[in-house]
Amino acid sequence: MLPFRRVAIIGLGLIGSSLARAVRARMPTVVIVGTDADADVRARVMELGLVDELADSAGAAVVAADLVVLAVPLGAFAAVGAEIAPDLAAGAVVSDVGSAKQIVLDALLPVLPQGVHLIPAHPVAGTEKSGPDAGFPTLFDGRWCILTPPDGSDAAAVVRLSEFWARLGSKVDVMEARHHDLVLAVTSHIPHLIAYSIVGTAADLEGVTRGEVIKYSAGGFRDFTRIAASDPTMWRDVFLTNRDAVLEVLGRVSEDLSALQRAIRWSDGDALFQRFSQSRDIRRAIIEAGQDTAEPDFGRHHGDE
Amino acid sequence: MLPFRRVAIIGLGLIGSSLARAVRARMPTVVIVGTDADADVRARVMELGLVDELADSAGAAVVAADLVVLAVPLGAFAAVGAEIAPDLAAGAVVSDVGSAKQIVLDALLPVLPQGVHLIPAHPVAGTEKSGPDAGFPTLFDGRWCILTPPDGSDAAAVVRLSEFWARLGSKVDVMEARHHDLVLAVTSHIPHLIAYSIVGTAADLEGVTRGEVIKYSAGGFRDFTRIAASDPTMWRDVFLTNRDAVLEVLGRVSEDLSALQRAIRWSDGDALFQRFSQSRDIRRAIIEAGQDTAEPDFGRHHGDE
Repeated sequence: MLPFRRVAIIGLGLIGSSLARAVRARMPTVVIVGTDADADVRARVMELGLVDELADSAGAAVVAADLVVLAVPLGAFAAVGAEIAPDLAAGAVVSDVGSAKQIVLDALLPVLPQGVHLIPAHPVAGTEKSGPDAGFPTLFDGRWCILTPPDGSDAAAVVRLSEFWARLGSKVDVMEARHHDLVLAVTSHIPHLIAYSIVGTAADLEGVTRGEVIKYSAGGFRDFTRIAASDPTMWRDVFLTNRDAVLEVLGRVSEDLSALQRAIRWSDGDALFQRFSQSRDIRRAIIEAGQDTAEPDFGRHHGDE
Repeated sequence: MLPFRRVAIIGLGLIGSSLARAVRARMPTVVIVGTDADADVRARVMELGLVDELADSAGAAVVAADLVVLAVPLGAFAAVGAEIAPDLAAGAVVSDVGSAKQIVLDALLPVLPQGVHLIPAHPVAGTEKSGPDAGFPTLFDGRWCILTPPDGSDAAAVVRLSEFWARLGSKVDVMEARHHDLVLAVTSHIPHLIAYSIVGTAADLEGVTRGEVIKYSAGGFRDFTRIAASDPTMWRDVFLTNRDAVLEVLGRVSEDLSALQRAIRWSDGDALFQRFSQSRDIRRAIIEAGQDTAEPDFGRHHGDE
C-alpha cells in the first residue's frame, strides 16, 4: 500500500525537483502537486513536466495533500507554514528536507493547526548545483534520510514517512532534532563553512593572483571550490538556523587548527605525522561503510580536460 | 630528439612509479633506472616491471644518468643529495617532484658537485593514494609542472627539462622558488592541512560518535577525508619545509574564518550570503580554466554503493 496518495512539494529547486522526479519514478500512481515562489522556476517545471499539477501558491498546493514537503530555504519556513496552515487537510503529514532540524520544530509547531502531523526530515543528499534542471530521480538512492519527530509524535505518521523515503531508495534513521543538528554541523555544515572561507581567502591574498589560484587548483583547492559552489541562500539559512551547534564545533576546529599551526611553527614533525596518520583510519572506515569508493579523486577527470 | 637518454628515478612511490610508467609510455627508448630505500618497494617494482634497471642504492642508480629525479619525501633530500653527489655524471640534470621548492635549493645546492644542473620541478598532480601500485602513466597528462631554476641556471638544461615534462603531457611553467611556495601553500598545502585538521576534530568530538560521522559523511565531510587520506610522511615534510608560506597563509585563513564565525554569532545573513556568493565566481573560473568539470560530485558514486 502506498504511504501517501497526493504529495505537495513546496519549492522546486535541486532537492524539490529531485523529489518530484523520484516520486514519479518509484511511485508512479502518486499525484504530485508542486509550487515554487519563483514564477520562472514554475514555468521551467511546467516545461520539464515534473509535476502532475502546478499550483500558483503554497496554500493552493497543499489542499487535499496527505503529505506536504517543504523544500524551501530554512529562513522561509515560518512564512510558508503560516501560509499553508489554513489549507492543510486533517491528518496530513507535514515534512521538509531542511539541513537543520530544531529550527523546523521552532518555526512550524506554533503555526500549524491541530490534527496535522509535523515530522521533519533531512535527506542527506545533494550536489553543489541548484535549480530544477539540476535535479535527478536517483539523488536519494542509497543515502540516509534522518527523521526528527518531536516528542509525542503519531507513530503511524512516522512509519508512513519512513516508508515513503525507503521507497525512494533511502536508508531511514530517526533521532532527536538537537542531536541531528550537532551531527550535521560536523559532517556537513562546518566542511561547507570552511570551504567557503578558504576559497574567499585565496581569492583575496596579496602576492598570489586569482589566475594562479585557479591555474594550480588541482593540488587540493579544487575540491574546496566544489563544495563552496553550493547555493548561497540555502547555506546562509543553514548557518543562521543551526547557529549554536555550528559555533560549538567551529570553536573546536579553531583549537585543533591552532595546535597544528603550533606544531608547524615548532617544527614538531612527530605531532604532524601522528595527526595525519589518524585521518587515514577515518578515511578507511568511510570507504568500508560504503559512503565512498577508494577510486582516486584528483586524477578522475583526466579524460575531460 | 629525446631530451634525455637515461633517467634515474630515486623513490618509486605514487609519483616516482607514475613517472616511470609515463616515461616508458611516452619515450619508450629512454632507459629508466629506479631505486627505493624500501626493499619491499623495490621487490614490488621488480614484479610490476616498471623500470629497465633496478639499483640497490641511490648512488648506484645515478651513474651515467643524464636526468636524475628525486621522488622521495622532502625531509630526505639533503641525505640523498649527499649520497648521489660522488656518482653524478658531468652535465647531468638533477631535478625532483617535491611540493615545496625553496627547500630543494637549500638542501641540494650545498652538496651537489660543480658541473651538474639543479633544476627543481613540481608536477602539480597526485592522488590520495601511496606506493608503487597506486601510480599510473597518465597522472601528469594535462597537469601543470612548475620548474623553479635558481638564478644563473643553464638555459639549455631548463629547456631540456621542459621538453621532458611536455612529452609526458604536462603544461610547463617557470617561476621563482619562493613564489611557487606561496602559490602552492594557498592552492594545495593549506587545503590539505585543514582537511587533516577537521577530520581529526570530527573524530574526537564528544556528543557525536565516530560511527555517526562516518555514516553521514556524504554531506560534505567525505570530500575532506579524501584529501586527508594522502601520505602522512610526505605531507609532514611539506609543512616542515614550506613553513613560512604555510604559516603566512594560515594566519589569513584564521582571520577569515573568525569573520565568518562572527557573522554567524551576530546572525549577519547579508555578510554570509555575500561571502558564499563570491566563491561561486571562483568555482566558475576553475571550470572555465579546464581544471575541473561541472559534473556534480556528491552524487557521482551512486552506482557503486
